[in-house]
Amino acid sequence: MTPFSPYYAVIFTSVRSDGGDEAYRTTAARMVELARQQPGFLGMDSARDGIGITVSYWESLEAIKAWKANMEHLAAQARAPEWYRHYRVRICKVERDYEGAPH
Amino acid sequence: MTPFSPYYAVIFTSVRSDGGDEAYRTTAARMVELARQQPGFLGMDSARDGIGITVSYWESLEAIKAWKANMEHLAAQARAPEWYRHYRVRICKVERDYEGAPH
Repeated sequence: MTPFSPYYAVIFTSVRSDGGDEAYRTTAARMVELARQQPGFLGMDSARDGIGITVSYWESLEAIKAWKANMEHLAAQARAPEWYRHYRVRICKVERDYEGAPH
Repeated sequence: MTPFSPYYAVIFTSVRSDGGDEAYRTTAARMVELARQQPGFLGMDSARDGIGITVSYWESLEAIKAWKANMEHLAAQARAPEWYRHYRVRICKVERDYEGAPH
């Protein structure tokens, strides 16, 4: 066991607007690819049915800031109003985690 | 504008095992109903496609502890190994949030 190191999570919840599907999908896939290459990136979970929830995990707040300021990511963020009816971003410190599996 | 009050998020990610669908669905719906009645409950977002992600929001760590210790919730937690191939719970402090909407 290693001691627990606090890390950070970005919870991105969104409701898609109608249309723009192809550009949206291409860009979303590219953003996942790009995020994975960022320093301090730890992982990502994503699901959409009605609402979309993407949670990305990061080593530090600095890593999150650098990702937010990435040029290609900024260009994608600028198109958010086309693609989302509404979205919300929550920057969180993960204070504790535990996992479970079958007995 | 009201000043930002820190609050807490519980990120529950899971992969369902095969079977047990009816009991699972009934229990999951009941847990949502029950969580909403808990003191300090602020809201919930949930999506599943492949992986399931449920994020619930709470006023305090105490509210999260009380919910985890709720008798009916404990009974549901005890059945988690039947219903999930894997799950992970992350307790987070939301340090900042912002939302966006179309221009």
